Amino acid sequence: MAAAQLTQAADAGAARTIVSVDVMGSDRGPGAVIAGVARYAAENDDVGFVLHGPKDTLDPLIARRKKLAGRCEVRHVEGVVTMDAKPSHVMRNGKGTSMWSAIESVREGKAGACVSCGNTGALMAVSMLRLRKLDGINRPAIACLWPSRNEGGFNIMLDVGADVRAEADDLLQYALMGTSYARNGLGLDRPRIGLLNVGTEEHKGRSELKVAHDLLGQMSDVGQYDYVGFVEGGDIPSARVDVIVTDGFTGNVALKTGEGTATLIRDFLKDAFEATPLSRIAALLALTSLRRLSARIDPRRVNGGVFLGLNGTVVKSHGSADATGIAAAIRLAATLAKSRFTERLAARVASAHLPGQDGAGDEGASGKRA
Amino acid sequence: MAAAQLTQAADAGAARTIVSVDVMGSDRGPGAVIAGVARYAAENDDVGFVLHGPKDTLDPLIARRKKLAGRCEVRHVEGVVTMDAKPSHVMRNGKGTSMWSAIESVREGKAGACVSCGNTGALMAVSMLRLRKLDGINRPAIACLWPSRNEGGFNIMLDVGADVRAEADDLLQYALMGTSYARNGLGLDRPRIGLLNVGTEEHKGRSELKVAHDLLGQMSDVGQYDYVGFVEGGDIPSARVDVIVTDGFTGNVALKTGEGTATLIRDFLKDAFEATPLSRIAALLALTSLRRLSARIDPRRVNGGVFLGLNGTVVKSHGSADATGIAAAIRLAATLAKSRFTERLAARVASAHLPGQDGAGDEGASGKRA
Repeated sequence: MAAAQLTQAADAGAARTIVSVDVMGSDRGPGAVIAGVARYAAENDDVGFVLHGPKDTLDPLIARRKKLAGRCEVRHVEGVVTMDAKPSHVMRNGKGTSMWSAIESVREGKAGACVSCGNTGALMAVSMLRLRKLDGINRPAIACLWPSRNEGGFNIMLDVGADVRAEADDLLQYALMGTSYARNGLGLDRPRIGLLNVGTEEHKGRSELKVAHDLLGQMSDVGQYDYVGFVEGGDIPSARVDVIVTDGFTGNVALKTGEGTATLIRDFLKDAFEATPLSRIAALLALTSLRRLSARIDPRRVNGGVFLGLNGTVVKSHGSADATGIAAAIRLAATLAKSRFTERLAARVASAHLPGQDGAGDEGASGKRA
Repeated sequence: MAAAQLTQAADAGAARTIVSVDVMGSDRGPGAVIAGVARYAAENDDVGFVLHGPKDTLDPLIARRKKLAGRCEVRHVEGVVTMDAKPSHVMRNGKGTSMWSAIESVREGKAGACVSCGNTGALMAVSMLRLRKLDGINRPAIACLWPSRNEGGFNIMLDVGADVRAEADDLLQYALMGTSYARNGLGLDRPRIGLLNVGTEEHKGRSELKVAHDLLGQMSDVGQYDYVGFVEGGDIPSARVDVIVTDGFTGNVALKTGEGTATLIRDFLKDAFEATPLSRIAALLALTSLRRLSARIDPRRVNGGVFLGLNGTVVKSHGSADATGIAAAIRLAATLAKSRFTERLAARVASAHLPGQDGAGDEGASGKRA
C-alpha cells in the first residue's frame, strides 16, 4: 500500500527525487557513506543525490562507483561537525560544514530530504534553525523504527531524543506526527497509537501522562488513528500497537536499552556457539537459521531516525552505520521525499484543531515554550 | 566474597534465618509458591519459613513436600490482594491479607526478609505503611538485577518503579542504597555507579541530572563507590558499571523494554529454528548451545526486585514466576536476611551526611515531599 501511494506521489511530481547527503559526519569516514549511496543507487535508478563535503575527497570516491555516474552533484564545503561539538556552537559557527550545507539543500527545495550520520544534537539544532518548525508544532521529535511482531515487521516510536521533556499537548502532536509517518512510511491507513507508561491502568504514571491519555483518546477521530491507551516497555515491539508515543528522554533510554539488550544477546549467542568443538559444528548447521534471525533484528535495517515537525525531512543515520545501514537511511529519506511527506505532515497537524493553539493570547500564556 | 560475608553474618547471629512468604499473590496460584519454597529449602537446610495464607490451602501443599517438614510456620489469613487492587485501597483495607501479614512478620522481627509475588504498588504501599522509611530516606526504591557482561553476571539498576519521580538528592540516596545492595548482594567492595542519561556528555539531559551528576561525584569517597558518570541505555548490561541509578519511571520503562526485547529475540530465534525441516535438525544439534545462552539470560535467574530504604527487606517476585523464579527470589531474600542487610543499609545512609537533611527547617522547606 505504501508503494502504491509513493508511486502516485512520484507520478504527480514532475521532478526527479533528490536526496541530500552529508558525506562527512560518519564515524567510518566518507568512503562508507559513498558506498551506502552507491548501494542504494544500484537498486533505484530514479533518485539523484546532492553530496556535501570537500570536493577533492568526494570526487575520487564518486568516480569509483559506476552507478553514481551522472547522478551526483557535489557541493564543496571544507568544514565538518565533530561528534562532540556542542549544538549551540554549531548553530553559531556551523555554516560551511557538510551538515549545514546538506540541510541547506532541503531548505532551498533542491532536495526532497536529507541524510546525515553526524552528531544528533547539532543536526537537530541546525535543522530547527534553518528549516524552522512547522506551524502549530511546539517541539519537533525524532521517530525511530523498532523491529516488531506486526505484519510489516516494524513499529514506530517517538520522541527518541529531540527534547528531554514533553507536555501533554506535545505528546498529542507526537501522536499526529507519528500517524502521518506510519501512513507515509509504513503504509498504515489508521495506525494504532499507544502512550508509554509504567503500567496500563489509568491511575498510573506522571500527571502529564494522565492529561495526554485523555487528549489522545478525544482526538483519535480527528487525527485518524486508533488510541489503544497506555502501553509498557514490553509492548514496544508488540502487535498491540503501531506507534509508541513518549517524551524524548524516556524514548532515548528505551531505544538504547533495546539495542543494548539485542547486542548482549547476540554476543552471548556467539559465546554459546563457540564454547565447545561440538557447538561450533552445530553453529555451522544452524547458520541459515541464525541468519534468518539476524535479518529480522539487524539494527542496520532500522537505521534512520526521522526528524518530525520541521519544514523539511531530515533523516539521522547512526554515526557508526556501514554501507548497508546508510543505504537503509537513504532509502527511508527517498521514500519520504517521494511521498511528499513534509507537506502531508503539515496538513495533518493543521487539520487537527489542537487545544491551546487557537489564539495568540493562549500561546502567550504558555511560558514554558522556548 | 559475598558468601564469606554472609557466613560471618550468619555466625554472628544466633537465630536461624527466617524468610516470610506471601503464598497467595502469585498468578500461578499457591502451589507454585510452595513449590518454589520447597526448591530453595532443598538446597539450604539452615533457613526456615513463615508462610501466609488460608491454613486449609497451605497445610496440604506443605505436607506434600518432605523438605519443608518442621521448617514452616503457617500464619492463617483469608484475604488476598488482587493484581488490580489500588494501593490506597489496600492500605486502608489490607489487614487480614496474606501480603499484609507477610510484611508484618518482618516488622515484628520474626523474619529477616519477606517475599511476595503480589501487586507491586500495593506491596510498596503496605511496606511503607508498616515498615516505615529509614531515617534520612525520602523516596524508597526498587532495585533489580540485570544480566550483564560483568564477571558476576549481573548489574543492579534502581529505581525500577517505586516512584515515578526522583530529585537530585533522591538519586544520591539511590546511589548509596545501590552501593549497599551491591556489597551485600553481589559481594562488590567498591561498586561502580553510573547515572542513566541520554548521553555521556556533561551538558546533556534534564536539569536534576546535572545536579545529581555533581552530587554523586562529590560523595563517592564518603559513599565508598566509584562514580563513572553518565551512562546510556546501552550501558545497562555493560562491564563499565555495576549499579545504574535512575528515576522509577525511566527505570521501569528500561526494565520492561529490556525484558520485551529479550522475549522478542527468543521468539524470533524459535521461529528461525522452526522454519524448515533442516533448521529443526540444526536446532537439535544446537540445543546445548541454546541452553547455555538461555541460562545466561533466563529472566527467572534475576527474579526479585528488592525494596530499598525501609526498616526491613522486602523482595518482590514476578507475579507469573514459576517455582524456579520463586526459589530465586527466596534465595535473594535469605541472602539479604543473613547479611543483616537492613542494618547495614541504614548505617550507610546514616554515615553519608546528605545535603538538605541536616535540620528540621530544611526538611520543612522542601514542599515537594509527601
